Amino acid sequence: MKNYLSSLKATNPIVHNITNYVTVNDCANVILAIGGSPIMADDICEVEQIVSISKCLNVNIGTLNVRIIDSMIKVAKCANSLNVPVIFDPVGVGASALRSITTKRFLDEIKISVIRGNVSEIKTILGMSGSGRGVDANDMDKITGENIDEILDRLKTFSKEHNCVIAISGETDIVTDKDKSYVIKNGVSMMSRITGTGCMSSALIGTFVGGNAKEILDATAFSVITMGICGELSYKKMLDNDFFSGMYRSLLIDEIGKFTYGKFTEYSKYEVR
Amino acid sequence: MKNYLSSLKATNPIVHNITNYVTVNDCANVILAIGGSPIMADDICEVEQIVSISKCLNVNIGTLNVRIIDSMIKVAKCANSLNVPVIFDPVGVGASALRSITTKRFLDEIKISVIRGNVSEIKTILGMSGSGRGVDANDMDKITGENIDEILDRLKTFSKEHNCVIAISGETDIVTDKDKSYVIKNGVSMMSRITGTGCMSSALIGTFVGGNAKEILDATAFSVITMGICGELSYKKMLDNDFFSGMYRSLLIDEIGKFTYGKFTEYSKYEVR
Amino acid sequence: MKNYLSSLKATNPIVHNITNYVTVNDCANVILAIGGSPIMADDICEVEQIVSISKCLNVNIGTLNVRIIDSMIKVAKCANSLNVPVIFDPVGVGASALRSITTKRFLDEIKISVIRGNVSEIKTILGMSGSGRGVDANDMDKITGENIDEILDRLKTFSKEHNCVIAISGETDIVTDKDKSYVIKNGVSMMSRITGTGCMSSALIGTFVGGNAKEILDATAFSVITMGICGELSYKKMLDNDFFSGMYRSLLIDEIGKFTYGKFTEYSKYEVR
Repeated sequence: MKNYLSSLKATNPIVHNITNYVTVNDCANVILAIGGSPIMADDICEVEQIVSISKCLNVNIGTLNVRIIDSMIKVAKCANSLNVPVIFDPVGVGASALRSITTKRFLDEIKISVIRGNVSEIKTILGMSGSGRGVDANDMDKITGENIDEILDRLKTFSKEHNCVIAISGETDIVTDKDKSYVIKNGVSMMSRITGTGCMSSALIGTFVGGNAKEILDATAFSVITMGICGELSYKKMLDNDFFSGMYRSLLIDEIGKFTYGKFTEYSKYEVR
Repeated sequence: MKNYLSSLKATNPIVHNITNYVTVNDCANVILAIGGSPIMADDICEVEQIVSISKCLNVNIGTLNVRIIDSMIKVAKCANSLNVPVIFDPVGVGASALRSITTKRFLDEIKISVIRGNVSEIKTILGMSGSGRGVDANDMDKITGENIDEILDRLKTFSKEHNCVIAISGETDIVTDKDKSYVIKNGVSMMSRITGTGCMSSALIGTFVGGNAKEILDATAFSVITMGICGELSYKKMLDNDFFSGMYRSLLIDEIGKFTYGKFTEYSKYEVR
Repeated sequence: MKNYLSSLKATNPIVHNITNYVTVNDCANVILAIGGSPIMADDICEVEQIVSISKCLNVNIGTLNVRIIDSMIKVAKCANSLNVPVIFDPVGVGASALRSITTKRFLDEIKISVIRGNVSEIKTILGMSGSGRGVDANDMDKITGENIDEILDRLKTFSKEHNCVIAISGETDIVTDKDKSYVIKNGVSMMSRITGTGCMSSALIGTFVGGNAKEILDATAFSVITMGICGELSYKKMLDNDFFSGMYRSLLIDEIGKFTYGKFTEYSKYEVR
C-alpha cells in the first residue's frame, strides 16, 4: 500500500471531533500522536465555524444528549456542503432508541465517508442479526472463515447504497467500499480490555482521511492496519515490562506516535478481496 | 471470604454509570480491568433502556448539572423497579446546596444498595460533625481507634433506617450494614494523591455487586479490600520504578486487571465486627 | 526567586476549575501533584458556593457551551467580589465567534488575575496579527529574538490596561505584568505533542496563585518555570525508557509531583526584563 502516513504528516490535518466524554482525551492524544491537530467543539453556535477550518469531522455517539445531537446533525450537514469528510462511530447503537434514531438520522440525512464500529454495531446498522450488548461486541457476532463471504457481500451492498466506506473492528478487521475489501489480521485481544480503542481507531481514521481525502478507502484501511500493529507492538512492550491494561493504554498511544511506514511494511497482515 | 471475583468474571456484568466527567475514563477502565463491561449514558431519553440491560447502576455526583440530576433520579427509580442495585457516591456533598439536595433526594426517593464516600462525606450524610472541605476528606474527620465504636454504631443505625450498605474510604476503610461491619486496613495514602480513586472504588463496587447481587455487603467489602490491595501493590511497583502519581494511576488499573483471589487471600487485612 | 512551592504546599489551596472535558482529568491530577486540592463544578446553581471555599478560580474555554458560559461569567463575578484570583485560558480564541465573544466578555466584565495562552491566542487577544489555527499555536506566531521587544511592549501595555498578568507558553515562555517581564527558556517541544499541557499549565498557575495570592506575577512565573522544568525532566525519562507521548503525559505529572525548590534552583533558565 502507498505511504499514507507521510501525506498525513505533511498536511498536519485539523480534525474536528464531537465525541463522548469517556475517551475524548485518548482521541485527542491519538490524533496528535499520528501527526494531526485535534479540536473538540460541540456547541451549536460554533460547530460550523470549527468544521470550516478542519480537514475531517469525527462524530461519535458514545455519550449522547439531545443538545449535542442537534450540533452533530448541523455540523455534519455543514461538513457535507464543504466537502469535509465525515467519520461516524455508532457506539452502542441498538442499546437505546436514542442511539438508533440518531444513527438512522445520520444514515438518512448525511453523506458519511466512513462508518466504523464493532461487529455488533455494524450488524445492527445493516439490519442483520446484531445482538447488541451495551457498547462491547457480542461474542456471537464474530466474523469467521465460514461467514465472511456473506458478510462482505452484505457490506458491499450497504456501502453501495450509502456511498460510504465501512470499517469493522474485531479479531478480524474489515474495511470495504462497494468494490474492494480489506480483510485485516492485525491487532490483539488486549485492545478490548481498555475503553476507547474503538473511539481511538475512529479518531485515527479521521486523521488519515483528513490527510488523504481523495483516497478514503485505502487511507482508512491503512489507518486500521496501523491501529492493529500499534496494538501488537504495545502489547509486546506491556508483557516485557509486566504491565497490564492501565499502562497498555499509554503504550498504545506511544506506538502510534512512533509509527513509521517501515513498520507498516514489516508487520501488516491483510488481504484484498 | 468467598471468591466474589470468580463470580464477577463469570457473569461479565454490564455496569451503567452516570458519573462525573473528571474521572469517567478511569471508572470505565477499572470496570473493564476487573472483568465487567461499562456503559456511560446520561440523557434522560435513554437511561431507562440502558439500565434495563445492566446488572448495576453507579451514580456519582462529582460534576452535577440540572440536566443529569433529572436523569439520575429517573434512572435510579427505574433501577429500583427492575431490582438493579444502585451504588451512590456523594462526591463533595456539603460543599454546595445542589450536592446536598441531590443527595437528600436520593436518600428519600431511591432504594440505594451501597453508599460509598470518604469520611467527611459520610459524616455529612449522617448529620454528624462533618466539616466538608471541597471533595477531599478533612483531616479532622479521621477514624481513630478511639472513635470507631461510636462511628460504627451510628453507621449501623443509618444503615438500618435506609436499608443500605455504607462504605467509607480512608486510612481505615469501613463497610457495614445494619448488622455486620468490616474494618479494613488495606490501602496506602498515595491513593489520595491522584484524582478518582474514590470514584474508581465506587465503580469497582458496582462491578462486584453487579456480579454478586445477592450478597451485597460481602461483595462490597471484597471490592473495597481489592481496591486497597491493588493500591498497595501498585505503590510498591511505583517506588521500584521511581515513578510517581502520574504513573501510579495507570499502575493501579494494571493491578486491578491482574488481581486474583490468591492475592486477596494473601494480602487482605480486615476484621469483622 | 523565592520558594513559592513551600507556601503552596503549606496552604494546600482548593482550586475551582471550570474547564474543558478533554483535559480535565490531567488538570485535576496536576493540581493534586503539586499540592493543591482540585474541585470541578460548572452548574450555575452551585458555582458561587464552590468558589467561596476556593483560593483560586481557573476558567478554560476549551469546550464551551452556552450553559457553562453563563456559569463562567457568574462565578467569575463572584470570585471578583470575594477577591479570589481568576485565571483565564482562552483556548482556541479566534477559531470561533463563540470563543471570541466569551473572551471579550471576560476582558470587559471580569477582573482577571492571569491570562495564559499560546502565542496565537494571546496575539488574537491583543488584536495583533494572530493567525489562529484551531487550538494549537501557529508556527508563524513564534517569538524570536528579533520581535521580542515589540511583543513585550505590547504585552505590558495590555497588562496595564487590564491590570492582569499575561503568560505565554511556547518555545520561549513569557510572563509579564505592566512593569516586569520574565523571559523563560525552560521546556521542550515534546510538550506540544500531547493534549492539555497548556490547560495543565493554567491549572498549575491557579494552584501557585491560590497559595501565593499576594505575589501573582512572581508566583505565575515560578509556575511556568516549574512546568517547563518538569517537561524537561520527564522528557529525559521518556527517552531513557524508550517511551513516547502516551507515557510522557504520565511522566510529566510524575515530575510535577516530585518537584522541589532545589530542582527549581538547579534547572531554571530565565531572565527578567
